[in-house]
Amino acid sequence: MFESFWRANGEEATIVIPGWQTMSYFSDVSNLCWFLEPEFAKQIRRLHGLVGNAVVEDRHIVVGTGSTQLFQAALYALSPSDALQPIPVISAVPYYSSYPAVTDFLHSGLFRWAGDANAFQGENYIELVCSPNNPDGFMKQAVLKSDTGKTIHDLAYYWPQYTAISSPANHDIMLFTASKSTGHAGTRVGWALVKDQEIAKRMTKYIELNSLGVSKDSQLRAAKILKVISDGYEFPNSIDAKFFDFGRNHMRNRWERLREVVRETGIFSLPEFPSEDCSFTGDRTSSFPAFAWVKCEWENAQDCAAFLKSYNILTRSGKHFGAGLNYARVSMLDRDETFDVFIQRLYSIK
Amino acid sequence: MFESFWRANGEEATIVIPGWQTMSYFSDVSNLCWFLEPEFAKQIRRLHGLVGNAVVEDRHIVVGTGSTQLFQAALYALSPSDALQPIPVISAVPYYSSYPAVTDFLHSGLFRWAGDANAFQGENYIELVCSPNNPDGFMKQAVLKSDTGKTIHDLAYYWPQYTAISSPANHDIMLFTASKSTGHAGTRVGWALVKDQEIAKRMTKYIELNSLGVSKDSQLRAAKILKVISDGYEFPNSIDAKFFDFGRNHMRNRWERLREVVRETGIFSLPEFPSEDCSFTGDRTSSFPAFAWVKCEWENAQDCAAFLKSYNILTRSGKHFGAGLNYARVSMLDRDETFDVFIQRLYSIK
Repeated sequence: MFESFWRANGEEATIVIPGWQTMSYFSDVSNLCWFLEPEFAKQIRRLHGLVGNAVVEDRHIVVGTGSTQLFQAALYALSPSDALQPIPVISAVPYYSSYPAVTDFLHSGLFRWAGDANAFQGENYIELVCSPNNPDGFMKQAVLKSDTGKTIHDLAYYWPQYTAISSPANHDIMLFTASKSTGHAGTRVGWALVKDQEIAKRMTKYIELNSLGVSKDSQLRAAKILKVISDGYEFPNSIDAKFFDFGRNHMRNRWERLREVVRETGIFSLPEFPSEDCSFTGDRTSSFPAFAWVKCEWENAQDCAAFLKSYNILTRSGKHFGAGLNYARVSMLDRDETFDVFIQRLYSIK
Repeated sequence: MFESFWRANGEEATIVIPGWQTMSYFSDVSNLCWFLEPEFAKQIRRLHGLVGNAVVEDRHIVVGTGSTQLFQAALYALSPSDALQPIPVISAVPYYSSYPAVTDFLHSGLFRWAGDANAFQGENYIELVCSPNNPDGFMKQAVLKSDTGKTIHDLAYYWPQYTAISSPANHDIMLFTASKSTGHAGTRVGWALVKDQEIAKRMTKYIELNSLGVSKDSQLRAAKILKVISDGYEFPNSIDAKFFDFGRNHMRNRWERLREVVRETGIFSLPEFPSEDCSFTGDRTSSFPAFAWVKCEWENAQDCAAFLKSYNILTRSGKHFGAGLNYARVSMLDRDETFDVFIQRLYSIK
């Protein structure tokens, strides 16, 4: 979806890498995360400072091959290595459908998927909090409270194009990714802001063992892209392109079109989001999540994903998110042409 | 070490990526490995064809974030998911020091490090064969033979700068990496040549779950670098730079200097490699491995790494490779200045 922005404004974001650059494994041996490119770290801190969506002071930055790898690094870092039983990993329903598979695919003795946080009983756990939440778009907080429980905050969607920025998030481990913030999924770069030094060290160790660092080419490219976004707001005379304004307008437009067709067909319902003050734009705004969490209200269509599929609309069934078959998740980030076809096909249902 | 080559010949290897390129997760949805950039696949096949170091016909290519990630993908792919016990992972001593840690750090229920292949008894196992071997530089073959045993061939160093190319390697799973073939460690890109389609699918699944693909920026850059190397041999009129010739000459020179100082000091010994016909160059050549596997012959220096450290020479102790303290591994790939200092410090011992 953000491709059209970068096509229009991408000249400044172009990167040139000569054959002899960034050949070493190392980026900054004085840094705890020794494979983090200093320029990328600088642009991460700058962008969070500009947007006001996360506290960066006194935080360690750990870079990863997307937030998927960082999520596993955080599980590793938070798991006691001498535990007799794997630590339960939980998240409130509906949770991101990849969490169970990514947690369990190696049958790790350190951690184990344990399902819905609301159904969990115990003092030792790792709770995943995705906010705004994938799939339903709501702002979330940890469900459980315990002195020994740990949390990982997946803040991939806490950016102004998706929701109001109410205050800088301030949690122990916060995950972000280029794919959702700027649209550069293929670059496979994410970052974690980590409060505790020992946890940051263990996350770094995971990435060292798992992939011996993170592509420097991608880090340099992501640094350039974050820089162009910040420049657009801080030096509007030199770069006349406001990425988050483009993003929010585009998302609002898509959500308005989706709500209209849902109203007209009467078969589905959508989550309703409150309007909130956004400290970044100074406006009051609703949420325009990256996914629409569609509920089939029609009795003849209780398997929502299957019903939509019969109209050639590809979604992910609610069952993968710990929810019912009557729910389905639809991407709101596809290219304009694809989104247009999706809306047309929805209209064809009535 | 290869940086000086790329500084002299890197103009052609420069890559330019505009802001709007390679934004999607997908590279080629028609390919089994859907995140593999087609141009990178093409240049991989072309370079192996030119060098003659591996069979590429009827092989699936799986791309990874370095061969470290691919190694884990291969363990995952070869492990029965319904086994009651983790499958033993073994390698003949001296083995690459990272194998045990990378195999075991997640306490996987699928696979478990089991040490020296020569000491192993059983029919079910995954044997790691590194050839030329890290740390000792010798060409290796699988130690065990069993109908149910599996092998992973780590061929990171099977390139003309390190050894004679005797024939195209032809194994079930062969791992390669840009960091050792071209010197671009920071790009974090490796590739596997895989015979069996189901194994290639499972390796792809691992990388999907572990990092949702591999940096496209890095793949495009690596494609460009491999292309420049092949062009240097196939179109010598347009590119007057022969990477492997540069590499072999440089490595030979370093090994000659190392052997000379080892001879003069009389405290150490080095492996002796036979000369072999190289099908790529048509010459007879010895091996010039990426690491020197140094043995302390002096009675007063039985902890070789500690002894060398007292002369400010950083090595990795033989104990990490399943071998004795009297061995240490030295990198032969550092920058010229660092290598010069290393040789000077060795002379200071006598």
